[in-house]
Amino acid sequence: MKDDTPNMMRAQRLGVLTQHETLALVRADCPVCRSEGMSAHSQVTVTHGDKSVIATLYQVTEDWLPIGTVGLTDSAWEKLDLEDGSLVHLTHTPPLSSLAYVRQRIFDDGLTDAQLRTIIFDIVRGAYSDIHLTAFVTATAAKPLATREVISLTRAMIDTGDKIDWGITPVADKHCVGGLPANRTTPIVVSIVAANGLLIPKTSSRAITSPAGTADTMETLTRVELNRTELRQVIEKEGGCFIWGDAVDFSPADTAIIRVERALNFDSAGSMVASVLSKKIAAGATHVVIDIPVGPTAKVRNRAQARELADLFTTVASTFNLKLRIEVTDGSQPIGRGIGPALEARDVRDVLKCTPDAPQDLRDKSLTLAAAVLELTGKAREGAGLALAAETLDSGRAWDKFIAICKAQGGVFEPPVSAYQRPVNATRSGRVAAIDNQRLARVAKLAGAPDDKAAGLDLHVRIGDTVRQGDPLYTLHTESIGELSYVLDYVKSNTDIIELTR
Amino acid sequence: MKDDTPNMMRAQRLGVLTQHETLALVRADCPVCRSEGMSAHSQVTVTHGDKSVIATLYQVTEDWLPIGTVGLTDSAWEKLDLEDGSLVHLTHTPPLSSLAYVRQRIFDDGLTDAQLRTIIFDIVRGAYSDIHLTAFVTATAAKPLATREVISLTRAMIDTGDKIDWGITPVADKHCVGGLPANRTTPIVVSIVAANGLLIPKTSSRAITSPAGTADTMETLTRVELNRTELRQVIEKEGGCFIWGDAVDFSPADTAIIRVERALNFDSAGSMVASVLSKKIAAGATHVVIDIPVGPTAKVRNRAQARELADLFTTVASTFNLKLRIEVTDGSQPIGRGIGPALEARDVRDVLKCTPDAPQDLRDKSLTLAAAVLELTGKAREGAGLALAAETLDSGRAWDKFIAICKAQGGVFEPPVSAYQRPVNATRSGRVAAIDNQRLARVAKLAGAPDDKAAGLDLHVRIGDTVRQGDPLYTLHTESIGELSYVLDYVKSNTDIIELTR
Repeated sequence: MKDDTPNMMRAQRLGVLTQHETLALVRADCPVCRSEGMSAHSQVTVTHGDKSVIATLYQVTEDWLPIGTVGLTDSAWEKLDLEDGSLVHLTHTPPLSSLAYVRQRIFDDGLTDAQLRTIIFDIVRGAYSDIHLTAFVTATAAKPLATREVISLTRAMIDTGDKIDWGITPVADKHCVGGLPANRTTPIVVSIVAANGLLIPKTSSRAITSPAGTADTMETLTRVELNRTELRQVIEKEGGCFIWGDAVDFSPADTAIIRVERALNFDSAGSMVASVLSKKIAAGATHVVIDIPVGPTAKVRNRAQARELADLFTTVASTFNLKLRIEVTDGSQPIGRGIGPALEARDVRDVLKCTPDAPQDLRDKSLTLAAAVLELTGKAREGAGLALAAETLDSGRAWDKFIAICKAQGGVFEPPVSAYQRPVNATRSGRVAAIDNQRLARVAKLAGAPDDKAAGLDLHVRIGDTVRQGDPLYTLHTESIGELSYVLDYVKSNTDIIELTR
Repeated sequence: MKDDTPNMMRAQRLGVLTQHETLALVRADCPVCRSEGMSAHSQVTVTHGDKSVIATLYQVTEDWLPIGTVGLTDSAWEKLDLEDGSLVHLTHTPPLSSLAYVRQRIFDDGLTDAQLRTIIFDIVRGAYSDIHLTAFVTATAAKPLATREVISLTRAMIDTGDKIDWGITPVADKHCVGGLPANRTTPIVVSIVAANGLLIPKTSSRAITSPAGTADTMETLTRVELNRTELRQVIEKEGGCFIWGDAVDFSPADTAIIRVERALNFDSAGSMVASVLSKKIAAGATHVVIDIPVGPTAKVRNRAQARELADLFTTVASTFNLKLRIEVTDGSQPIGRGIGPALEARDVRDVLKCTPDAPQDLRDKSLTLAAAVLELTGKAREGAGLALAAETLDSGRAWDKFIAICKAQGGVFEPPVSAYQRPVNATRSGRVAAIDNQRLARVAKLAGAPDDKAAGLDLHVRIGDTVRQGDPLYTLHTESIGELSYVLDYVKSNTDIIELTR
């Protein structure tokens, strides 16, 4: 028989940083757990006043944690507004009925609007462990979401976050489905579009499967973690912004889902469309340009896949009265030279400042996308967008707008420079026939990107270039000798990332 | 730029019990992590002498963990053979190439023998996090494994564990695919079979999705955590055993997979067949009886599903020269009365001792399965198995064998009795038309089973019985008031678990 003591415990800050999951540590011989029948890996609800979080329980057998105390990770500390010694309640977390829907999605049918809504609601309130989240994400990838389900998922994601209404139209936005290293067009497009008087409250993600997201890159140039009030101030003042989307949390469900997708290094079409569109709609966008790069080692492999994805984007967007324009672009190789936050930031600045050696491909692509936004919103008539975009860039108006936005966000920073550089040379002479985007991205990640801002690589060749044996193909940038030797191991066993033909 | 200090750290035992995952806690400002480029949630390899484990890194910002120290969970402590203050190495874990196969399984094709083998090998060496494991498990459930893949998976699971060779044939075994609460035939079948001179080195699991596994039940009657040497001694002395399979770890990959399936409350046909057959083959079985209960709320819902599963079992078994007999049985309601470890143990004992009020259905089903084993192994001729099984039970030979095995395993225990009992009564008069196995199992789990050995429920009715309003349908058993009120909440909103018609 167990004791029946009241389930109050003293909170102790563990100072353990978890990205997401809340851990609750208690002594294995703790009377509360015995009386409540809680065991290791139980999901428990920790309540303090009117706030509560769901945590995974771990048991401790050593004395460093006193009996009657619950050790909590930092995420709980903030959500519950705790001080050391605060009294909290530990209770059972009721069984999650929405897990039956996840099982249904795996074994049987698709899900209804109400079922998907329940799953998303449970994810947002933190009731899904990594295992539950992963099962949902994998099931909707292995058996792709129907268009109907993508619409439901998008709506549920919008409804579980906060929406911004700008009170005017058009409100522009752009998004790239990714899969291409570098390709850092966003800061350039936003600067051009905002310089023409349009609102473009673009939020960006950190890297999901890539060596850098736009937020990682922009973080080397300005402050990107702004809250909603600050976002509104920047947009009202300058029209555009370069901020990290998670900080304003337009779609908390999506944030949880993307964390799992990052660990698995994939996302599925349906989940991506719901993720992108829910965030655009919540951010108040009315006119959105979607960039779909197509190439053998890009995320979208061929034209047929691109068409299918474009159709899904278009159908879902129209349900929410969102005007969409899809640009299918060349995804056969990286855009720009640097791969990694600071190296990409350098390219972005060079294009905006129109320096003579700025990467031409990054300039051309940014102009194309900016033109699409200008035309879609009616700022330029059909066919006149490109000229207006080029004029905005060449006149210095885009660069001025860029600096103004950075200042409004909190300052203009100088990107860091890496501690170690090492060229990777051609093992023989030949012509560059292909570049493997995915393995090149992996090289940049192994070098330390995106966590190390200065890490990554600089690409010196493009498809069609002729190189001689010993010529540098790319240069590795790392912050430590450990990482340098680690990435060199990978490079040595992957000499065909840049494919050379005679 | 980061420091480049050698990556040695002092180990500190956290005393945190994790079921599986190894956690490594380090100070956020630790030089080793900075020099190696390790961040929160990195997978790191911790090495001590010639032993190593893969751990997930968490960062600590508080002083309770000194700089230069790595806090490790108990699993690491045992695997690495550590003492407090031992010096360990922390290094990057190389990228897992087998995750590409998991992605392939989700988005494209089935996997080859070599690909599945690589995945299973990586799982066994602890390289898969919960997210990776869950993606693999879910992918093979959403897009069922082909027979060819089930064979590969079975072989990989056998090859990553240790195999026992008994040097004789036949070696018998039995397995129930489950989904039916109680249904605790194993201890009875093993006793009857072993009493007839056969070898039956049956290992059992703890509960996966049920309120009790055979190992949980038998743990209330004898010691079940035996190592391989002890298993061999018990089998050589008594012919049969009732031990927990994980303790002898015939299939470490399966142990990891089942942990995830438990959290998700499902398993798929292919994964189940590979799991069951790999463990039987590793345990040296040559002749195996498989019980497939069929019922609307059992794991197998109808005859067609049962046939499909039976075919898969048969095909895979024949690849490994395993003789199989499938028994499709009635799965419309629980077998026996008690649901929960100690309550089921009482029923098992009653049947073995032939007490007058022993549950008849448990006796009948155990005899059927024992007869199947006796006939399959040639111990009884076709059609004579049932009489031999009944004689073994009624003569007391099975009971004697049961006690002998328990003694050989380390003693005969008395099952515990619950602290709190509460009947759940019929809200109206009527005839029992159906019993929902799954929700009844959930009631027993909410009451505390299987962690609380005495918890669960006692079922007082069977399909076809007539009850009057106020008659007890079942009695709840719990170890705490907290659990009692928790399970009563569920019971009150699920009054149709036992379906009554006029």
